[in-house]
Amino acid sequence: MLRIGVVGVGYWGPNLIRNFVANAQTEMKMCCDLRRERLDYIQSLYPTIKVTENCQEIVQSTEVDLVAICTPVFTHYEIAKKALEAGKHVLIEKPMTSTSAEGEELLNIATQKGLHVFVDHTFIFTGAVGKIKDLVTSGELGDLYYFDSTRVNLGLFQHDVNVLWDLAPHDISIMHYVLNEDPEAVVATGADHLGSGIENVAYLTVYFPNNLLAHINTNWLSPVKIRQTLIAGSKKMVVWDDNQPSEKVRVYDKGIEVIKSADEVYNMLIQYRTGDMFCPKIDSKEALGAEVNHIVKCISNGHTSVISGEAGLMVVKILEAAQESIKSRGKEIKI
Amino acid sequence: MLRIGVVGVGYWGPNLIRNFVANAQTEMKMCCDLRRERLDYIQSLYPTIKVTENCQEIVQSTEVDLVAICTPVFTHYEIAKKALEAGKHVLIEKPMTSTSAEGEELLNIATQKGLHVFVDHTFIFTGAVGKIKDLVTSGELGDLYYFDSTRVNLGLFQHDVNVLWDLAPHDISIMHYVLNEDPEAVVATGADHLGSGIENVAYLTVYFPNNLLAHINTNWLSPVKIRQTLIAGSKKMVVWDDNQPSEKVRVYDKGIEVIKSADEVYNMLIQYRTGDMFCPKIDSKEALGAEVNHIVKCISNGHTSVISGEAGLMVVKILEAAQESIKSRGKEIKI
Amino acid sequence: MLRIGVVGVGYWGPNLIRNFVANAQTEMKMCCDLRRERLDYIQSLYPTIKVTENCQEIVQSTEVDLVAICTPVFTHYEIAKKALEAGKHVLIEKPMTSTSAEGEELLNIATQKGLHVFVDHTFIFTGAVGKIKDLVTSGELGDLYYFDSTRVNLGLFQHDVNVLWDLAPHDISIMHYVLNEDPEAVVATGADHLGSGIENVAYLTVYFPNNLLAHINTNWLSPVKIRQTLIAGSKKMVVWDDNQPSEKVRVYDKGIEVIKSADEVYNMLIQYRTGDMFCPKIDSKEALGAEVNHIVKCISNGHTSVISGEAGLMVVKILEAAQESIKSRGKEIKI
Amino acid sequence: MLRIGVVGVGYWGPNLIRNFVANAQTEMKMCCDLRRERLDYIQSLYPTIKVTENCQEIVQSTEVDLVAICTPVFTHYEIAKKALEAGKHVLIEKPMTSTSAEGEELLNIATQKGLHVFVDHTFIFTGAVGKIKDLVTSGELGDLYYFDSTRVNLGLFQHDVNVLWDLAPHDISIMHYVLNEDPEAVVATGADHLGSGIENVAYLTVYFPNNLLAHINTNWLSPVKIRQTLIAGSKKMVVWDDNQPSEKVRVYDKGIEVIKSADEVYNMLIQYRTGDMFCPKIDSKEALGAEVNHIVKCISNGHTSVISGEAGLMVVKILEAAQESIKSRGKEIKI
Repeated sequence: MLRIGVVGVGYWGPNLIRNFVANAQTEMKMCCDLRRERLDYIQSLYPTIKVTENCQEIVQSTEVDLVAICTPVFTHYEIAKKALEAGKHVLIEKPMTSTSAEGEELLNIATQKGLHVFVDHTFIFTGAVGKIKDLVTSGELGDLYYFDSTRVNLGLFQHDVNVLWDLAPHDISIMHYVLNEDPEAVVATGADHLGSGIENVAYLTVYFPNNLLAHINTNWLSPVKIRQTLIAGSKKMVVWDDNQPSEKVRVYDKGIEVIKSADEVYNMLIQYRTGDMFCPKIDSKEALGAEVNHIVKCISNGHTSVISGEAGLMVVKILEAAQESIKSRGKEIKI
Repeated sequence: MLRIGVVGVGYWGPNLIRNFVANAQTEMKMCCDLRRERLDYIQSLYPTIKVTENCQEIVQSTEVDLVAICTPVFTHYEIAKKALEAGKHVLIEKPMTSTSAEGEELLNIATQKGLHVFVDHTFIFTGAVGKIKDLVTSGELGDLYYFDSTRVNLGLFQHDVNVLWDLAPHDISIMHYVLNEDPEAVVATGADHLGSGIENVAYLTVYFPNNLLAHINTNWLSPVKIRQTLIAGSKKMVVWDDNQPSEKVRVYDKGIEVIKSADEVYNMLIQYRTGDMFCPKIDSKEALGAEVNHIVKCISNGHTSVISGEAGLMVVKILEAAQESIKSRGKEIKI
Repeated sequence: MLRIGVVGVGYWGPNLIRNFVANAQTEMKMCCDLRRERLDYIQSLYPTIKVTENCQEIVQSTEVDLVAICTPVFTHYEIAKKALEAGKHVLIEKPMTSTSAEGEELLNIATQKGLHVFVDHTFIFTGAVGKIKDLVTSGELGDLYYFDSTRVNLGLFQHDVNVLWDLAPHDISIMHYVLNEDPEAVVATGADHLGSGIENVAYLTVYFPNNLLAHINTNWLSPVKIRQTLIAGSKKMVVWDDNQPSEKVRVYDKGIEVIKSADEVYNMLIQYRTGDMFCPKIDSKEALGAEVNHIVKCISNGHTSVISGEAGLMVVKILEAAQESIKSRGKEIKI
Repeated sequence: MLRIGVVGVGYWGPNLIRNFVANAQTEMKMCCDLRRERLDYIQSLYPTIKVTENCQEIVQSTEVDLVAICTPVFTHYEIAKKALEAGKHVLIEKPMTSTSAEGEELLNIATQKGLHVFVDHTFIFTGAVGKIKDLVTSGELGDLYYFDSTRVNLGLFQHDVNVLWDLAPHDISIMHYVLNEDPEAVVATGADHLGSGIENVAYLTVYFPNNLLAHINTNWLSPVKIRQTLIAGSKKMVVWDDNQPSEKVRVYDKGIEVIKSADEVYNMLIQYRTGDMFCPKIDSKEALGAEVNHIVKCISNGHTSVISGEAGLMVVKILEAAQESIKSRGKEIKI
């Protein structure tokens, strides 16, 4: 039985708690928050969970094996560090930390202590991403060409991080998981329309080896909500529209073939191929439940996780580089 | 009566001819093409139009007032130059020229000779763009924040220009017309997946004064066709989906308001506003017909055109800068 | 304070309970169900609510003012009768009863006792239906022509009632509320593909005075879920697509005008009018909460409800007539 | 070489002419129309086609083998009769005739003379209908349950026929071709909102053997254009949305299975099955071109056509019965 303490029960924490309560192999022990009314709320739902306003009680508790951290980004490092030093595994809300240096330090401590760091990239456990990963891994898409994601909507503005740190962790973690490649460099652009120093529109290009290119379009000021990802390979192409109530993932038997002739480029022959489209049935069970199962299994088997601290750190590195690139108007930043 | 000669009757030329024939103030006189079968085709449709394989005959003809040039991009400069030197107005297919230097030279000649250079940015004359221009000009959108356009589909690959030179002229010319601002700089990224040296995916960011940002996503390898533009201002926001058979332009009464308090950023209060959406009725007459009317009027009145050579040159400058930026992985290039 | 007892806590009952708990003017006192595990579930969520397996305890309780009945249709009459006879107001799940005779008897008892009968036509309280009602009442649509609704999906098959009794109460109650007219007659057709004697596809036409026509398409065997209603008047037309996450109600400034000339029908001149479309902002608060408020207000003021037993009875009469019409292949049945 | 005369060159006639001209095995000889300007228009496009205002010239011409009749419905019978009596094959615009008696007479003459009667149900030759026919014929859908079609839009009002005679021939001919069954009876309802005696909204139910049911929803007063057909069988289900620019036909691996237990209906167990969806690639060549090929082949081989006069007559019989049913408010009319 894995015993859980949750730090921060604002918007996301209660979802974690619900899944830890529902899982037969985890036991929700304690949670904390600075806001008394949030603790009262949790208590009313789960009278047996211990609540406290003092985070230290969880971090130091002998009754907790894993600390889940659902607080604002800038507090992740400090809480996670204390938890790791006290010998707890940690599950950190995304993005993992505010800087890659902080992330690396956490990983070092975890390695020394033989502990797990998980980062809550929940999307990895959705049926849609699982299906796309399968399509890539099985070679059905062929050689990968690009990953192009759009995640825009109206609000919610964050006060401490820009739109890229807020929305792109989803796309970056999915991209990294699906493409299974480490990026070479990023170029990013963006703008702050409210004079707050925090970009509300941002565009991120990520360069991978072999001409594989990723692009992520994030926007807090879009009148419509778009959640769309295009992934193309040499054999097939995928469109994932997460707004659709069903048929979220469409696989297109489309592509091009180049027939190079002996003479110059003008004679390069390009042939288009368009065949059937199909929408595979997607598992619709809650991703967070699958994530909790995965965490339990990783800890008990000692396996490396698909939402490991290393994966979380890569997301932070890309965000950090993107931030630097935005500030210098598109300067290429190596990862 | 404006007498017209058309150079190049491949895909687009016949559309121009049809509109010149239909217009009561223009007279289709001659056309030329290197391919005999294209000339035969035109002749079968319009027996009274003179056809020739020799472009010089049109350029030098005393029966022609305006030469329309619908040939591959790399030939625009030479043909247009000869036509202008022979005292003809010109209408050049987009993009205007392969380089901004060529474009500038054409403008110089035109100025000296008192001739018009038009560039065939047909979209400017669509009902949708006209309506959007009205919304911006009337101040209904408020201060402009961004222009975000996606123009992707499967093919058609061009042999001599990359996807940006092929698809983005539409978006750049619309952007320039609607925003009515000259850009400061561009950042672009892209990739070539066929090893031809020609990018088939490209992302372009354009910086304007006052934090106004534009972004254009172009792709020849998309399994789905997307033609979508988002334009947001401080008061309202527009989504233009040109794939829709009707209701192409949607105007959202949505926005945010920032209430700045005396203390630090954490207390910045952001309020969302969401009201009605409306789809204005859009004029659906053919854009090319309106363009021909406009050309006739500009020549007879001596007015400056909204598709002037200067506008066409700006598009080329942005493309040129974007190309340079792509090759250096996102380096900012000033316009 | 209105004290509530809920009979039946299967799928819908808990939603009612949640809203009765949340409302400051109602007090959730008791609930019953034949299944012990459902009662345990309610108890775990709301420890202060009394639970019982004996429906009589609620019906007879001196602590209950209104009995909400969320049991299978065939039990509604008996439970409601007992509750009314015991001096309780009742809120009955739709459809109100299995026969109009039963419904009429309930109304008689209620009238004698001075009690309220409400039927849970929740859709009446949605923002979308409220907005459509406003458009009709204000005359913005002009004279009404038709109401055409499609409500199809895969499952859930009911064992005791056909697809019309299962799905059409929504559309019929909305139709009756919005059109504010009593129907003259119905014609219905349908088929049973499983040999169970219960139609899984059914089409219902409802005739109203003045050529106003309604049609409802219901289907349990549709591969896609459709929730679409078209309402046209002489001035404007409405499309309500309840599947849309936003922009559910679209109002079209479209119509036709007939200019009758002196001579025969061949010279009848019809002019089309197409103008803007707009999507009014729709209130998105939970309909059931508004319904509870409405019930409280009706009871305290003695006002007639928009979800009165009379309204519920009309739905049953139409269903009953439709059933008869289906069995005789479209015979017109007067209401 | 099949020599063609076309009677009526209004809206549809020119499309036929274009395809007869393009086909290597047909020769467009003559056309007629009462309106001189229509003849001039045809002459300007095809100078070699003989034109006349006198229909008799075509019907009697020794240069014509097949007469295509694209005139208003009420004239079909008379023109076709003359053409058949003069020994010509005929291709009649849909619907074939105004009454089934007229249609039967035409078929009798054709049989006596050994001539072909074709009815221009063009949709039969679209890639979408062809694909759906294949799915049904191959048994991939299983036993057929229903065919549910919606064909609504704003206008165009016809003066001589109601909305059912105008729009439903498409759906009825497709239904008859795809289901490959003769109907037993129809029930129809409708309304006339303009006081012209001509219904502008109509709903048609068609009963087939074995509980197979068809329903067609037609409307000239819809603010939106809908072209959607659902076809369900025991194994798979099809949604055909003809408004979609691509992916018109979607095949759903969805269905239900009934497991009947020994005891009563309450224990009937229904299991839902939902699997992948796929969109087969659809042939996008022009249907009318395929129709002309088909006609040539039928005449040269003496084969029975899928758009035979018998098929056209069945459409008229259904329309005739539907008309009678509408006038008597849903009375079942046997076919």
